[in-house]
Amino acid sequence: MNQSETIVALATPNGIGAIGIIRLSGPDAIIIAQKVWKGKDLTKQGSHTLHFGRIIDGDMELDEVVASLFVAPRSYTRENVVEISCHGSNYIIESIIKLFIKNGARSAKAGEFTLRAFLNGQLDLSQAEAVADLIASNSKASQQIALQQLRGGFSSQLQSLRDQLVQFASLIELELDFAEEDVEFANRDQLKKLIHEITKVIGSLIQSFELGNAIKNGVNTVIAGRPNAGKSTLLNALLNEERAIVSHIPGTTRDTIEEVLNIKGINFRLIDTAGIREATDAIEQIGVQRTMEKISQSALLLYVFDAEQITDEELISDMESLQKPGIAMLIIANKADLLNDAQLAALSQNAIVISAKEKQHIEELKQKIYAAAINEQLTGHETLVTNIRHLEALQKTEEALIRVLDGIDTVTSDFLSMDIKQALHYLGEITGAVTTDDLLENIFSKFCIGK
Amino acid sequence: MNQSETIVALATPNGIGAIGIIRLSGPDAIIIAQKVWKGKDLTKQGSHTLHFGRIIDGDMELDEVVASLFVAPRSYTRENVVEISCHGSNYIIESIIKLFIKNGARSAKAGEFTLRAFLNGQLDLSQAEAVADLIASNSKASQQIALQQLRGGFSSQLQSLRDQLVQFASLIELELDFAEEDVEFANRDQLKKLIHEITKVIGSLIQSFELGNAIKNGVNTVIAGRPNAGKSTLLNALLNEERAIVSHIPGTTRDTIEEVLNIKGINFRLIDTAGIREATDAIEQIGVQRTMEKISQSALLLYVFDAEQITDEELISDMESLQKPGIAMLIIANKADLLNDAQLAALSQNAIVISAKEKQHIEELKQKIYAAAINEQLTGHETLVTNIRHLEALQKTEEALIRVLDGIDTVTSDFLSMDIKQALHYLGEITGAVTTDDLLENIFSKFCIGK
Repeated sequence: MNQSETIVALATPNGIGAIGIIRLSGPDAIIIAQKVWKGKDLTKQGSHTLHFGRIIDGDMELDEVVASLFVAPRSYTRENVVEISCHGSNYIIESIIKLFIKNGARSAKAGEFTLRAFLNGQLDLSQAEAVADLIASNSKASQQIALQQLRGGFSSQLQSLRDQLVQFASLIELELDFAEEDVEFANRDQLKKLIHEITKVIGSLIQSFELGNAIKNGVNTVIAGRPNAGKSTLLNALLNEERAIVSHIPGTTRDTIEEVLNIKGINFRLIDTAGIREATDAIEQIGVQRTMEKISQSALLLYVFDAEQITDEELISDMESLQKPGIAMLIIANKADLLNDAQLAALSQNAIVISAKEKQHIEELKQKIYAAAINEQLTGHETLVTNIRHLEALQKTEEALIRVLDGIDTVTSDFLSMDIKQALHYLGEITGAVTTDDLLENIFSKFCIGK
Repeated sequence: MNQSETIVALATPNGIGAIGIIRLSGPDAIIIAQKVWKGKDLTKQGSHTLHFGRIIDGDMELDEVVASLFVAPRSYTRENVVEISCHGSNYIIESIIKLFIKNGARSAKAGEFTLRAFLNGQLDLSQAEAVADLIASNSKASQQIALQQLRGGFSSQLQSLRDQLVQFASLIELELDFAEEDVEFANRDQLKKLIHEITKVIGSLIQSFELGNAIKNGVNTVIAGRPNAGKSTLLNALLNEERAIVSHIPGTTRDTIEEVLNIKGINFRLIDTAGIREATDAIEQIGVQRTMEKISQSALLLYVFDAEQITDEELISDMESLQKPGIAMLIIANKADLLNDAQLAALSQNAIVISAKEKQHIEELKQKIYAAAINEQLTGHETLVTNIRHLEALQKTEEALIRVLDGIDTVTSDFLSMDIKQALHYLGEITGAVTTDDLLENIFSKFCIGK
């Protein structure tokens, strides 16, 4: 992590495109660029300016390019940054990067630009992680949540909690210095009150992970039911396209089919499955087995039945075999178009009544799918935890705080101090107030090169 | 080709990268960007400046970005250009492009930015084509030749030839006006001299295509010889790696293997082949057949023989069966390490003597491969034709000029005028002085979107 070095990498994806952007960052970024530059003297230009010029290797010209100048500290990394926009040939890009390396830069490691932004105080750790989330975002909700985290809402909330705890920690440290005199600088009632307050906030952050994770990674949703209940027709109706092969022959769907349905910004990964019944051949047997596996890995189960055909006994037996703890289940009565009003009224007590074939009540079903997966309302102002590292740190903070509460009236100041310090440590890990090389390595190695 | 519209496209490759660049060009580029911009007022900023800001869709923020401003005519297209550097998520990129379209831009067609640069006089047609060549360049030589063409050396040479011809054409037109008086404004001797001069230049441009094409597309080079002559060992020695499976069992290589060897910036596509002999099984038979096909499609044949084993009769028979008109052939005596000095001296009269296994004389062989394919010297100042469209136009120009020469003393001014006009037409097609919609469509549709 030597920041006296100037680093270089391609910032745009590999592949043929109109242009490629090569990014240099470090104390010598502008000086190195100037060494291979034919055009205006880059070392004499202001920050945030663009310059047309040529990249030259001795007598040989490599490309006509545009250079973007960002003078420290007015850049992403807070270092001098030069971005070279060149023609998007891999040969040209590689040649220019090699030329910069020959002139004193070195190849950037994955995430090293963002690591420098963090080390130079431009971003805290959770903001830096939000940059990777933003690049990986694939839906409105995941992009919004990453952008919110990038703006620091998440970390500032944690930082203010941590600041309050630090005060108590120092008061209790002070008690240790006067241990023999048995004084109490830290008011135990106030400390209890603060910790109750903090655990409440942390508890709600921990709870938000379920939603945050659904937003970031999508909700695994299995469609299951007896053969010919209309599962594939339902999938097509939800997606509004003909994705699954639909037929009236029971057992048509053997492979599991996965499609993404976006409802209000949340991605639901819909998994159509083979019909559940006593399989008549070996291949179908495997299909049924796979269905049960898929259900156990999902967060939401859409159980569909043929409202006209199914018997009460069959329905009860299906519900018993499919219901799993922790997996939300929607009961969907299909083929409503074949029923009379009395039948519909009776069914609608316990099931969501639709006709997949006639596309009746599909929008209502979508609302119910959304509500079943997303208990809380997504307001856009709320803080959501999406990162498993943050979740784990929050859980460990909570555990430490519970130990503080448990011992507050009984244990000595030194044990209390230890538990508070642990809570501070885990909170600090989220924002990067507490870091280790391993932690940083672990976070930034998952970034792409050039960011 | 309505240039009053503002066009938008992703300029960087598809895929996940640190950043993506979205390019807007047209009269309203800056106004459209400003509509979705939160930050400094872009309409009030100077050209060649960079601005940090946010892209917003109503209340919703899409991304934190950097905008590059190029105010007309100081841009690639000579129009107002805004380049938005955003986080490299496909979701974000698509959302921003959609937002620009919603605010008045339209999707750019392939090559449309460069087409506008051409229509606005920033580039002539052969320079515009050089942009595509530059993006596709994959070696030093192909990049150098594209860059030279981009700088206009090629077109300016043609333009000056064309200007001289235009003068004669107008003089001969003048003769037509005074046809009844039988005057001769255009001095026939001077015209002859000019046309000789022009055909000489055009002839050398046409000849340069062989080299230009080799540089742009590489030289197909087949390695052939009897089984166990050491063809695969030679391939490995040339590439300095273990690519082909080498064994002492004759007939080891059945599939043809292709590798690229770069010698002084030229890519040689090396094609290792099955040994040439009476094949003993059906698969090997196909291999031999394929070898003969590969030779007929190549520009250069490296014939290798085992200097220790081969008889004079076999050598003569091989040479007779392999030599093809138009395909250069190098005769390579392998296994020099097993021979004595007298044998080596005798062989070196008629063959290039090497040891592939011991890597002896491989560098010399490379020089000879280069010389055999590239007859002329590549100086970097010479004009090379690499584009088949240019070659065809030059050939048609040459034909028209020969017709002029043939008829100059015998045919009437009106026929002469027609042939000169044809020559002018074809020359004009190269630089774009003469264009049709079809021609432009044909050229720019091969570009990538965003360029």
